[in-house]
Amino acid sequence: MVCKVHLYEKPVLNDPVLIEGLPGIGFVANITALHLIKELNATLFAEIKSSSFQDLAMTTGNGRIYFPTNQFYYYKGKEGERDLIILYGNTQSLTTIGQYELCGKILDISEELGCKYILTVGGLRKEEKIETPEIYCTASDTETLQEALDFGAKIMKGHIFGVAGLLVGLCTLRNIKGLCLLAETSGLYPDAVATQQVLKAINTMLNLKINLENLSTAVEETGEILKSFGIVTSSIEKKDREADFRWFI
Amino acid sequence: MVCKVHLYEKPVLNDPVLIEGLPGIGFVANITALHLIKELNATLFAEIKSSSFQDLAMTTGNGRIYFPTNQFYYYKGKEGERDLIILYGNTQSLTTIGQYELCGKILDISEELGCKYILTVGGLRKEEKIETPEIYCTASDTETLQEALDFGAKIMKGHIFGVAGLLVGLCTLRNIKGLCLLAETSGLYPDAVATQQVLKAINTMLNLKINLENLSTAVEETGEILKSFGIVTSSIEKKDREADFRWFI
Amino acid sequence: MVCKVHLYEKPVLNDPVLIEGLPGIGFVANITALHLIKELNATLFAEIKSSSFQDLAMTTGNGRIYFPTNQFYYYKGKEGERDLIILYGNTQSLTTIGQYELCGKILDISEELGCKYILTVGGLRKEEKIETPEIYCTASDTETLQEALDFGAKIMKGHIFGVAGLLVGLCTLRNIKGLCLLAETSGLYPDAVATQQVLKAINTMLNLKINLENLSTAVEETGEILKSFGIVTSSIEKKDREADFRWFI
Amino acid sequence: MVCKVHLYEKPVLNDPVLIEGLPGIGFVANITALHLIKELNATLFAEIKSSSFQDLAMTTGNGRIYFPTNQFYYYKGKEGERDLIILYGNTQSLTTIGQYELCGKILDISEELGCKYILTVGGLRKEEKIETPEIYCTASDTETLQEALDFGAKIMKGHIFGVAGLLVGLCTLRNIKGLCLLAETSGLYPDAVATQQVLKAINTMLNLKINLENLSTAVEETGEILKSFGIVTSSIEKKDREADFRWFI
Repeated sequence: MVCKVHLYEKPVLNDPVLIEGLPGIGFVANITALHLIKELNATLFAEIKSSSFQDLAMTTGNGRIYFPTNQFYYYKGKEGERDLIILYGNTQSLTTIGQYELCGKILDISEELGCKYILTVGGLRKEEKIETPEIYCTASDTETLQEALDFGAKIMKGHIFGVAGLLVGLCTLRNIKGLCLLAETSGLYPDAVATQQVLKAINTMLNLKINLENLSTAVEETGEILKSFGIVTSSIEKKDREADFRWFI
Repeated sequence: MVCKVHLYEKPVLNDPVLIEGLPGIGFVANITALHLIKELNATLFAEIKSSSFQDLAMTTGNGRIYFPTNQFYYYKGKEGERDLIILYGNTQSLTTIGQYELCGKILDISEELGCKYILTVGGLRKEEKIETPEIYCTASDTETLQEALDFGAKIMKGHIFGVAGLLVGLCTLRNIKGLCLLAETSGLYPDAVATQQVLKAINTMLNLKINLENLSTAVEETGEILKSFGIVTSSIEKKDREADFRWFI
Repeated sequence: MVCKVHLYEKPVLNDPVLIEGLPGIGFVANITALHLIKELNATLFAEIKSSSFQDLAMTTGNGRIYFPTNQFYYYKGKEGERDLIILYGNTQSLTTIGQYELCGKILDISEELGCKYILTVGGLRKEEKIETPEIYCTASDTETLQEALDFGAKIMKGHIFGVAGLLVGLCTLRNIKGLCLLAETSGLYPDAVATQQVLKAINTMLNLKINLENLSTAVEETGEILKSFGIVTSSIEKKDREADFRWFI
Repeated sequence: MVCKVHLYEKPVLNDPVLIEGLPGIGFVANITALHLIKELNATLFAEIKSSSFQDLAMTTGNGRIYFPTNQFYYYKGKEGERDLIILYGNTQSLTTIGQYELCGKILDISEELGCKYILTVGGLRKEEKIETPEIYCTASDTETLQEALDFGAKIMKGHIFGVAGLLVGLCTLRNIKGLCLLAETSGLYPDAVATQQVLKAINTMLNLKINLENLSTAVEETGEILKSFGIVTSSIEKKDREADFRWFI
C-alpha cells in the first residue's frame, strides 16, 4: 500500500500555509502543531498511514488506542489571518524511501488544497547551555529566506534530517516555497521554551495571534504520551546516521 | 510479486468473523487457529505467499515439505454459531513494509467475503509466575472494547507488535471492527494454558461451542513443528525492536 | 526496474525441464550447470538483470568484464533425451524480496516455453568426512518425490535456503512440478565429487547421457572465477540467517 | 516516487557522450565533472531526485541550500569537438536497488538525447605511494576497450563499485557502448593529480581541448563542500561491502 490517504473532508482554503509538526528533536514541531490545533480548534480532515510506519498498535491503559499515523487539520483564518493546514502525527517513516513517499503524499494533499507555502519547524540540538533559544532558518529560495532573516532568524549551517529538511527540498521540484525554522534546544525532553520561540516566529510571519499562555498543556500532553511508552528523550534517531553519508558530499 | 493470493474456493458466508492465528508470542494465536480448524473441520479456501516471507523451503523428514505461507479456512456456523474465517500460517512478514502489505491483503480477502469484524489473538509476555492467565484487550472502537470488558478482559497497556496489532489498526481505515485479545504467557513455549483462556473467550464472544478437551493435540503439533526446525522459544522477535522507535512517540 | 529480461531468441522446446544452477553451497549447482552447457553445447537465449543484484562490475585482468547476471541456455534433446533449459549465473539476489522476484521471473520464462518440471540442485553441508556423497531430495508433490526416492535419493530434513528451495515452493502455485536434489558436501570449495553425484542422478532421471570425464574443466573454471575475486569458500551466506526466523515456525 | 526527473530543457545534441561525475573514491569523477562544467560553461538541463537519496537538506552557512540531487548539463562541441552530457551530483543512491533505478533513469535520459556512448570515471584506490597515477580501464565490449588501451590505459582487474561500474554493465542491455576510466589515487582527499590524468585521457579520446590550468578551482570547491559538512575522506563507502558478496561469484 505504501501510503494510504483517508480523506474525511475536503476543505476550501485560501492560499493556505502547511505547518509541519511531526516528532523530532526536542519535539518542538510536535508540540507546535498540537498547540496550534488546540488553540485554533483546528479540524481533522485527512489521515495518512504508511507501510513505512511501525507495524504495531499501542494502548496507554485508559482505553484509547493509538496507531502510527499522520493527521491533517485545517484552520480558516479570521480577521486577516492566514488559512492553515497543520500536519500532526506520532511518527515519521522508518526508512529513507518511506520518508520520500510520505513527503510526496504530504505535498500532493497540500497542492490539491492550493497550498504554495510550506513551513517546517524543529529543534536544533546544542550542547551548550541555552539562555534564550535562537531561531535558525533555511529556505527553498533567497526571497523566502530573506523574510525569515528580516524578523531576526539566523542562517542555519549543517544538515536538517527527516521530514523537516526533506519537505523543503522537494518543494523546489513543485514550485512551492519552503521555509524551515529551527529553535535551539538541548533536545533531551519536550522543549517548551524552544517551541515558544518557534510559535512567536509563526505569529509574526503568518500574521497570527496564537495565545502562548496555555503552551504547557501541549507540552505536558506530549510528555505524557512519551512517558506512557517509556520514552523520555528524542535522541534515538541520532545513531546510525553516519551510514547515510556513503557516497554523499 | 509482493503478495500473491491463490483462491481455491470462494465461500458464501454470513457476516463472518476473521480470527487471526499467525505465529507470535507463546504461539497462542497459532495454536488457537490450529485447534479451531481441527475441531470445526474448517475448509482451506485460500493461500497467500509473499516476497516478504523467507526465501527457503523446509522438510521435516517425513516427506512433507513446507513453505512460508498464510492459509485461510472457513467454517459455516451451525445452530446460531457465527460463520468464521480462520487465518493460519507458519510465518509473518520479515519486514515492516511486508507486514503492511500482508495485512492489507488479509483485509481485502476478508472484506470480499463480507467480513466486518476482525479478532486478533496472541500472548502477552509476563516475567512473573502466572497462575490463571488473564485476558487483556484493545479494540478499534469503544463499543467493541466494551464487549470484551464485559466478559472480564482487562485493558491492555503497551505495544502490540506485528499482525495482531497492525490488523486492528488498519481496520479503522475500512470501517471494520477490530478486537485484539492477549492472554498472559511466559512466551517460552507453545502455551496451552494461555491458549485455553483465549478459546474460552472466543466461545463466549462469538457464541461458539469449541470443545477444549483435545487442545493438547494442536499444542503438540505446534511443538513438533517447532522442534523439527530446532526452535524451542518464540523470543527471537524481541531483539532489534528498539530500532523501530526512531521518530516514533 | 526490479528484474529486466533480455530475450535473445525464443526457442521451441518439447516439454522441457529447467535445471537451476546458481551459486550456492559447494558451488554444486553452478558447476553442474556450467558442465551441462559445455557438454551439450547449449545455446544462450535469455538473460536477467535485477535491481537486487550487486551494484558493481568486475574484471579479471584478461579483458573480460563480468556483471551480476542470470543466463538461460537451452538444449534440444537427441535420441529420446529430454529438452533442457539451463539456468546459469554468477549471483542470486541480495534480498529476500529480490529472491522472490527473481524466482517469479525464472518461472515466467520457463512457463512461456512450456516447462512443467523444475529441477533445482545444490550442496548439503556436512561437518563429518564424506566418503561417497549421498543425494538428498525434496519435492513439490509425493509423486515427484517418489521418482527421486526410486533411484536411491534420501529424504531431506531441514531448510533449503535461496533459489533452490524457493523455486520448488513457488512451483506449487503454478501447477509446475519441482524437485530439489542436494549432494552432501563440505561446502568449502567448488566440489567436483558432490557435483558428479548430482550429474549421475540427472542422467538417470532425465534420460540423458552427459559425459562426466571432463567435469574437472567446469570445476576449474568455477574455481578460477572465484580465485580471481579472492573468494575461496561459499560459507559467507551462512551468517545472519538466524535473523530470518523472526516470526517463522 | 523512486526517481523523479525534472527536465528544464530538452537540448538537441549530435551523437553525445555522457560523462559520469558522481561522488566516489578520491572524488575524481566529481572534480572531473565540475571542471568540465566550469571550463565548457555547460548548461544545466535536467535534475533527478530519488527516494533512495538521503532524507535531509543541508546548508553551508552562506545562505545556499543543498539537497541530494543528480544534475545533467550539456555542452555543444565546437570545431570538431564531441557533444557532451555531463552528469554531476552530490550523491549516489543509498541502496543497491536505488543504484539500479538511478542508473536506469540516467540511461533513459541519455538514450532520449541520442547518446550511444557512456564514459564513467573514478579513482582506483592504491595503498602504495603513487608517482604519476596510471589510468586503468574496462569496457562493455572489446572494441571500446581497445580504444582505451591504444592511448595507454591498462586493463583493470577487480571490482568497480557503484554507478561507475553499474552504468557500464547496464549499457550492454541497451546497445550503448560503455567505458570506465579509473585513475590511481590514495583516495584520501579530492585528488587533483588523479583527476588531471583522467581529464587528459578525456581530451584525447573525445577530441576535446579542456584547459587543465584552472583545475585547482574545481578541486578546492569540492574540498570546500566536503569540509563544510565535516567530511575529509571518501573512505566511508568501504565498510560493509563484504556483505554484498553473499551468493556472488
